[in-house]
Amino acid sequence: MTDDLHALQRRLAAFAAARRWEPYHTPKNLAAALSVEASELLEIFQWLTPEQAAGVMEDPDSAHRVRDEVADVLAYLLQFCEVLGVDVLEALSAKIDRNELRFPLPGAGD
Amino acid sequence: MTDDLHALQRRLAAFAAARRWEPYHTPKNLAAALSVEASELLEIFQWLTPEQAAGVMEDPDSAHRVRDEVADVLAYLLQFCEVLGVDVLEALSAKIDRNELRFPLPGAGD
Amino acid sequence: MTDDLHALQRRLAAFAAARRWEPYHTPKNLAAALSVEASELLEIFQWLTPEQAAGVMEDPDSAHRVRDEVADVLAYLLQFCEVLGVDVLEALSAKIDRNELRFPLPGAGD
Amino acid sequence: MTDDLHALQRRLAAFAAARRWEPYHTPKNLAAALSVEASELLEIFQWLTPEQAAGVMEDPDSAHRVRDEVADVLAYLLQFCEVLGVDVLEALSAKIDRNELRFPLPGAGD
Repeated sequence: MTDDLHALQRRLAAFAAARRWEPYHTPKNLAAALSVEASELLEIFQWLTPEQAAGVMEDPDSAHRVRDEVADVLAYLLQFCEVLGVDVLEALSAKIDRNELRFPLPGAGD
Repeated sequence: MTDDLHALQRRLAAFAAARRWEPYHTPKNLAAALSVEASELLEIFQWLTPEQAAGVMEDPDSAHRVRDEVADVLAYLLQFCEVLGVDVLEALSAKIDRNELRFPLPGAGD
Repeated sequence: MTDDLHALQRRLAAFAAARRWEPYHTPKNLAAALSVEASELLEIFQWLTPEQAAGVMEDPDSAHRVRDEVADVLAYLLQFCEVLGVDVLEALSAKIDRNELRFPLPGAGD
Repeated sequence: MTDDLHALQRRLAAFAAARRWEPYHTPKNLAAALSVEASELLEIFQWLTPEQAAGVMEDPDSAHRVRDEVADVLAYLLQFCEVLGVDVLEALSAKIDRNELRFPLPGAGD
């Protein structure tokens, strides 16, 4: 069974602590690292047509690269949230609630 | 109780489908949007000293902004993974396993 | 007549000095700001089809936004180069020279 | 003598045309590539303290890496401007004019 999100967050924190990486893991550095990793994910797609981009998981090498970058993005997002005490699932849940008010469905509430 | 990650992923998919946003949600567009949102998170920190950055959650406005951008990053990451069929928790779990081999602890395995 | 690149670089340096912004203009902060501005340029295009993207200068509002973001990217690039003493034109000229060796034309040099 | 900006822009256009890269050089792809290169520049600095970041040009390897990424950022910025017909020097000059009104000097105009 896969770890859930909070279990992964605890594994990442233990991993960084054991390697004494905590002094580098400031909120600003982690936000920079998160944005760098998101760009590495985008880099995979930058010259692809929409059709090529849709087929990216069919090639084992590019599929591995996508999974690897996706993991890095989530890793830095969770570490960022850890050092600032943000509950990322709660933040997203609240954001979806706000978006449901901001982008009402046609006919909703009539 | 907060939704878990997969429940949030399903809410996001339903939200986009109900608004007929799916044609825009190509892997390439979602990767671009993810990287744009990660930069918006970084923007909060770009001129701050490390000390100011560490106190960012003490100010209600900047705390709200951080939670909002964190939610956007996770939202686009989940939607990207949804359209490409990537299990993001499994991808991160596998990445941590690889990193444990790549960055062994001093003394580990001796 | 438009200022040349080095004249603009001097104007930017004088502008920041007059406002006492120099302490904020560290290489790391300027690199972060440059990447944030490049993302704001990308944001204009993130949901556009290739056809819509090609017509972006026909709409006065989006044309203004493109010019504004392009200016911001160049401004932070020049300020970054200023604080580190990098000659950006020389750097690009040397890079094109290297790329001509790295991506030779078919038939070139035969 | 170094090429000026417009000469470099023409060299880049000829380089891409000779290699038949023009179909890939859409505004959207170039904006994505620009943002990816800006992130690669940021990556050099992401774990550095402000002091380490200030000394980055003293190490030949990191100095070369900085010059290389700066060149890539300018290259994609110029190619982006080329395909959309934007004069980047004029855009920056106009932006500095606007910023002089937006951030007036204390005492200026009194």
